[in-house]
Amino acid sequence: MFASKISVIVWNEYLHEREDAGVRAIYPDGLHAVIADALRATPAIQRGALPLEVGTATLDQPEHGLSEERVAGCDVLVWWGHKAHHQVSDSVVERVQRRVLEGMGLVVLHSGHFSKVFRRLMGTNCSLKWREADERERIWVVEPSHPIAAGLGEYFELPYEEMYGERFDIPPPDSTVFISWFEGGEVFRSGCCWQRGHGRIFYFRPGHEAYPTYHDANVQRVLANAVQWAAPRVTIADRCPMVAPLETLSDKHRVFSKAGVLQGQGDIE
Amino acid sequence: MFASKISVIVWNEYLHEREDAGVRAIYPDGLHAVIADALRATPAIQRGALPLEVGTATLDQPEHGLSEERVAGCDVLVWWGHKAHHQVSDSVVERVQRRVLEGMGLVVLHSGHFSKVFRRLMGTNCSLKWREADERERIWVVEPSHPIAAGLGEYFELPYEEMYGERFDIPPPDSTVFISWFEGGEVFRSGCCWQRGHGRIFYFRPGHEAYPTYHDANVQRVLANAVQWAAPRVTIADRCPMVAPLETLSDKHRVFSKAGVLQGQGDIE
Amino acid sequence: MFASKISVIVWNEYLHEREDAGVRAIYPDGLHAVIADALRATPAIQRGALPLEVGTATLDQPEHGLSEERVAGCDVLVWWGHKAHHQVSDSVVERVQRRVLEGMGLVVLHSGHFSKVFRRLMGTNCSLKWREADERERIWVVEPSHPIAAGLGEYFELPYEEMYGERFDIPPPDSTVFISWFEGGEVFRSGCCWQRGHGRIFYFRPGHEAYPTYHDANVQRVLANAVQWAAPRVTIADRCPMVAPLETLSDKHRVFSKAGVLQGQGDIE
Amino acid sequence: MFASKISVIVWNEYLHEREDAGVRAIYPDGLHAVIADALRATPAIQRGALPLEVGTATLDQPEHGLSEERVAGCDVLVWWGHKAHHQVSDSVVERVQRRVLEGMGLVVLHSGHFSKVFRRLMGTNCSLKWREADERERIWVVEPSHPIAAGLGEYFELPYEEMYGERFDIPPPDSTVFISWFEGGEVFRSGCCWQRGHGRIFYFRPGHEAYPTYHDANVQRVLANAVQWAAPRVTIADRCPMVAPLETLSDKHRVFSKAGVLQGQGDIE
Repeated sequence: MFASKISVIVWNEYLHEREDAGVRAIYPDGLHAVIADALRATPAIQRGALPLEVGTATLDQPEHGLSEERVAGCDVLVWWGHKAHHQVSDSVVERVQRRVLEGMGLVVLHSGHFSKVFRRLMGTNCSLKWREADERERIWVVEPSHPIAAGLGEYFELPYEEMYGERFDIPPPDSTVFISWFEGGEVFRSGCCWQRGHGRIFYFRPGHEAYPTYHDANVQRVLANAVQWAAPRVTIADRCPMVAPLETLSDKHRVFSKAGVLQGQGDIE
Repeated sequence: MFASKISVIVWNEYLHEREDAGVRAIYPDGLHAVIADALRATPAIQRGALPLEVGTATLDQPEHGLSEERVAGCDVLVWWGHKAHHQVSDSVVERVQRRVLEGMGLVVLHSGHFSKVFRRLMGTNCSLKWREADERERIWVVEPSHPIAAGLGEYFELPYEEMYGERFDIPPPDSTVFISWFEGGEVFRSGCCWQRGHGRIFYFRPGHEAYPTYHDANVQRVLANAVQWAAPRVTIADRCPMVAPLETLSDKHRVFSKAGVLQGQGDIE
Repeated sequence: MFASKISVIVWNEYLHEREDAGVRAIYPDGLHAVIADALRATPAIQRGALPLEVGTATLDQPEHGLSEERVAGCDVLVWWGHKAHHQVSDSVVERVQRRVLEGMGLVVLHSGHFSKVFRRLMGTNCSLKWREADERERIWVVEPSHPIAAGLGEYFELPYEEMYGERFDIPPPDSTVFISWFEGGEVFRSGCCWQRGHGRIFYFRPGHEAYPTYHDANVQRVLANAVQWAAPRVTIADRCPMVAPLETLSDKHRVFSKAGVLQGQGDIE
Repeated sequence: MFASKISVIVWNEYLHEREDAGVRAIYPDGLHAVIADALRATPAIQRGALPLEVGTATLDQPEHGLSEERVAGCDVLVWWGHKAHHQVSDSVVERVQRRVLEGMGLVVLHSGHFSKVFRRLMGTNCSLKWREADERERIWVVEPSHPIAAGLGEYFELPYEEMYGERFDIPPPDSTVFISWFEGGEVFRSGCCWQRGHGRIFYFRPGHEAYPTYHDANVQRVLANAVQWAAPRVTIADRCPMVAPLETLSDKHRVFSKAGVLQGQGDIE
């Protein structure tokens, strides 16, 4: 009944890495390459985990690498974007949104909080407080029995990260798996799950391009877990059907007056 | 601290009433006129209820009657639309969405489930099953202590309504106040609450234009309650500020290599 | 990392079947025997499903068949009780509650809504409306992508069931998978999921002893799905530890006056 | 329809203050006296706020000061306990639980997380990490439009508090209003709301007896807001009624065989 593998696309804006030597030093082939490799290499530890088939896509490709055909064959889309959210075409955004609502999983990373895709699915501004100050982040596991937390300890640390602080303008998550503590004094709901339509969405906070976050083993474990968690269980196309009654109805139509008083019985059309 | 009244706009597409004699017989001055009158006339029974100041707006007005100024002064917007959702301009939709996220209440009625405003705030398709067959709807109060249910019995009935059936493609409601039973065999989550940003949203199912639903005393009670519930407690404009640390940070910046190994300490830019 | 099977105990009060010929005609060896056989025979269709090892336990056994050892080895407990809830010893109830909070799954059936175990885990009265009138129940699938709904259509019917009607006094479910329509005019949240501690709890409404509900293929499918869904992902014993700080604290203790003004620094004990 | 005031009881274990000079220096007449005075003195700033009538009760009184009559007349109960949870009689715990489910508000403070009352209503262990090290707590307002956050800034600080750290073993809150940052490196969901039955429950973390927390103006503001928020909107006694059908049922009873096959029509029982 279920496929024997999970088809994953790691999408990356892929601009910082080409424009900034500091970022390129950490991610010479792009953030997406490191994430894709990590997904391929991280052994699954969840019950029912399936092998991954991981590809990538970037902003500069035709249709941003997210053609109708490619999105149709994708089980889980991982999204990293930062400074070019506005360059993502609305038609691709609608395609991704529709597919998530049909069942595709979506893992949104870090500055992807401001991506069109995430904001469209959330319906909110998705704004937050922020600061780039090379500070320590400690990520607490609030739901240790959530599949996304499998294999983690009670917390893990990232020595240098951008700070994101509350209030994060998101709908109430279905589950809040992680909450971050920042050296500079803030907190943040760093791992949030939602279902929208038939798709599962996970937002994961860490991943500023100037830090080696996606080389971190705990971060890679979270991403591998999240992809397994977000993989679709069913795919259902949207419809809004007129349906016949399942029980016998009274058989007369009615006509109403201004005040809502029943005037008689006959055809309304 | 709080205003002494709640400013309400009842928005109506106002097409059926002008095009269809059957609908006009029930709502000669438009659905919005009946709803607005009902809001004015229904005595508030909730703790802390405030007097309402009720206006209306329609699709055919400039900016659909929802100018920047008017929306800025609105506390709760009530929305009825059906066959012209696509005629509502995107700029007005964005204005309403932004204002809801700042704190304005939104009460979406019946076929408004497919309005741009509601779908943008939900992020989902908002589709459902439906049937126009003049059938009986019994609306069960699932949360009798919710402010929107104040003054209602355990259920109330509408003798003739359009059927809406599950699955209703919405995000999980924060509260499900009503569930409907239909003569033809379906069920529906008929009264659903969400918070988005700082605004409260209530979806209320009944209200097909061919029936005198908005003349019904229980329906009017629900609308009056919903407006009081949805009225803003605060209004907060969206921002995504860079902020200074609240605690002393370690004072060195760091430089990273490809593999994420710390290379030294210095300036990254 | 995960076990290769799921160990299930089907617990039954087992009184009606021995006291009432009508019930015995439907369940000659007890409800639990039919449920256990169904779990053994229903092929798993969910991703990651594991084989089941199914046993049973009844009220009249020592410790109701739920000794410390047996509960410790149980992954998912299925619970059917009706007229002898008060005969279940508090120590067994506490054992089951503790184990659920550690991670064991719990599937509560029908009149088990009033069991001590369910009420203790919910914290509410779990009361509802009811009627035994051999009426038709139509169970609508509200979350078709939930694992418990795998393999079901948009709804299924039970020709004769006891009616349970809202308001059902439960905490807001994490997911409401099913909503029932009853011939007599009521609705009910018939499939509800909660997480408590590290354990997953599913309440499933159908199953009055006077009807052959547990012989129904759709009901058996739900039970098989629910057991897979509720199986633990981790097991974590409860603790409330004192912990050392992870960051360096200011090193002075303080002494306070009546009004909360700091008086000096020194030892408080 | 609504009462003109809110009747509040501040319940305190009242042991530390009598046994420990350091605590007595801060709370000479007991924590409850300071909290009660603060509730009386803090002006309400929420829409629809009502005047408070505030009394107190302590463990050493007959029935712990919570007789049937007194609880019946109470709108909101505030609970502080720490080292004598086991001394609270089960009958009083059941009385309080029943009354909360009927509609009474409950505000549980700090070490009250381990009170019988709170654990019974939550159904979980309510355990956490902790440390007494005089450290700074910064309480972030995650839901600034929640009534309990009225009048607060984006955060407030307590210079010295006991640390409570995640994972806090509670059911998923309906709303998480506050999240704390601790100097020593932990985070905690410090302001959590639940509805149970018809009653509203608020857990507020701060308030270790060795610190002047309840003298703090922000803490007093939270308590005053919480009492207004938790005040009942309705009071509904629990019942589980047999009800007559609202629709005409098919009029035949049925008899079933072992395999669930309908054998004929007639009387069951």
